[in-house]
Amino acid sequence: MADSMRTALRVPDGPVNLAGYDPAARPLAPVNKSGKAKKLRTDAEHLAGLQERLWAESTAGGNRRVLLLLQGMDTAGKGGVTEHVVGTFGPIGVQYTAFKKPTKQELAHDFLWRIGNRVPPPGVIGVFDRSQYEDVLVVRVHELVPESEWSTRYGRINAFEAELAGSGTTIVKCFLHISYETQRERLLARLADPDKHWKFNEADIDERAFWTDYVAAYEAVLEECNTTVAPWYVVPSDDKAYRNWAIGALLRETLEELDPRYPQPDLDLDRLRERLEPPH
Amino acid sequence: MADSMRTALRVPDGPVNLAGYDPAARPLAPVNKSGKAKKLRTDAEHLAGLQERLWAESTAGGNRRVLLLLQGMDTAGKGGVTEHVVGTFGPIGVQYTAFKKPTKQELAHDFLWRIGNRVPPPGVIGVFDRSQYEDVLVVRVHELVPESEWSTRYGRINAFEAELAGSGTTIVKCFLHISYETQRERLLARLADPDKHWKFNEADIDERAFWTDYVAAYEAVLEECNTTVAPWYVVPSDDKAYRNWAIGALLRETLEELDPRYPQPDLDLDRLRERLEPPH
Repeated sequence: MADSMRTALRVPDGPVNLAGYDPAARPLAPVNKSGKAKKLRTDAEHLAGLQERLWAESTAGGNRRVLLLLQGMDTAGKGGVTEHVVGTFGPIGVQYTAFKKPTKQELAHDFLWRIGNRVPPPGVIGVFDRSQYEDVLVVRVHELVPESEWSTRYGRINAFEAELAGSGTTIVKCFLHISYETQRERLLARLADPDKHWKFNEADIDERAFWTDYVAAYEAVLEECNTTVAPWYVVPSDDKAYRNWAIGALLRETLEELDPRYPQPDLDLDRLRERLEPPH
Repeated sequence: MADSMRTALRVPDGPVNLAGYDPAARPLAPVNKSGKAKKLRTDAEHLAGLQERLWAESTAGGNRRVLLLLQGMDTAGKGGVTEHVVGTFGPIGVQYTAFKKPTKQELAHDFLWRIGNRVPPPGVIGVFDRSQYEDVLVVRVHELVPESEWSTRYGRINAFEAELAGSGTTIVKCFLHISYETQRERLLARLADPDKHWKFNEADIDERAFWTDYVAAYEAVLEECNTTVAPWYVVPSDDKAYRNWAIGALLRETLEELDPRYPQPDLDLDRLRERLEPPH
């Protein structure tokens, strides 16, 4: 497409007001002549091919890798993106990490310690389901550490991400933006399906009381940590199909720009073919 | 199906002679009335559903996990199985590990150290692309350690696997069985495709001179480490479609026997729904 999803969803520099972002918008989504939405198709084979080339490049010493970072309120779709978008890549080139409530061991270290341990190796697409940003989101909303501490973390995160970018990591940070009402509907849908009860956590309802605090904390993140080397994208996520398609497009554009190539070692084909002649 | 792939491909107890195993066989593959092979379809959605239930079970304290261990000569299809069979599971529930030539750090530890570090956690399907068996295969063929050392490893591997099995891991060990001629054709195919040259390693040709030694080493493995809790399956792998379908069936049977269930927490649905009433 001529238009760029990265341009359309990129958060502009400066203060962010999430009220100005419609979670049901569908920027760049194709429509037919009568204005009806077309089916959104992610070209899984094309994405998988790009990823294989990134991996192939790394086997010849290439250092590049991609980090897809997913943040969003509960039920925003971090798991869905992992299943439907990241799932189009093969298991060999993907490293998925869900960052949960920190363990005792993790808490004994700096907040970036567990993050650094899961940075993708060369050739791999790393996926962070939650991330270092929890340390300025839930931690800020519930004052799990004093403001004097969490307020220093924006700068430290920027420095950390700049270092990653400098050593070959292309960072794609997505805020999956849903409305308060959409979250309610999704929680009710979980209650309606006994096979989804295991995903239900009453604490998710408790957290809804802090919705506006989370919005403010996200706005701070989207302003303070929106850098050239690690930009934020706000992905409207009330429509799951649009959300998946948009993140697929962000990854496609990112990988196409990297333009990884299969290494072309200088093989002596005639000699190698001769060595493979059948025994006689 | 009524027949069991696990029964059909299971290595019987006792000495193993691989000459008696046809790498082009297709046990249990469906044929139509005129005896022609039918298309082999892996029910990806069914497999993914079983895996999701295994994962769900683990979130409620379940301890079970599956380890799919893949061994075979170069070009036997370990990568292909990972892409086409393991790829049917979502990234959340899979942990893939390729064991390469050991690093200095790995060599400084016991041979099982790096293996133990990559045992899948509860709810996860672990995939070993090569494994502890390299330490009685390439190591034995090239005498990388003295026989007095490698000969003790069969028993140590059995003890290690028994411990894994005892702590909730169902182990599925597959030997991808190809012929010497099939390997030759696959290496030639790599030479014929410039986009596959990066996969080509002349050392793979050198190793062909040791084919009969590798066969003997595999026969020892299939005899010495074929236990009830960690049985070996010989998967005829000259036909890639059959190989993928057969391993899909082994995993399906394994997961169906485990029969994981979605946890059914005791939720007070009325009260929770009331808490989710929209603000007024």
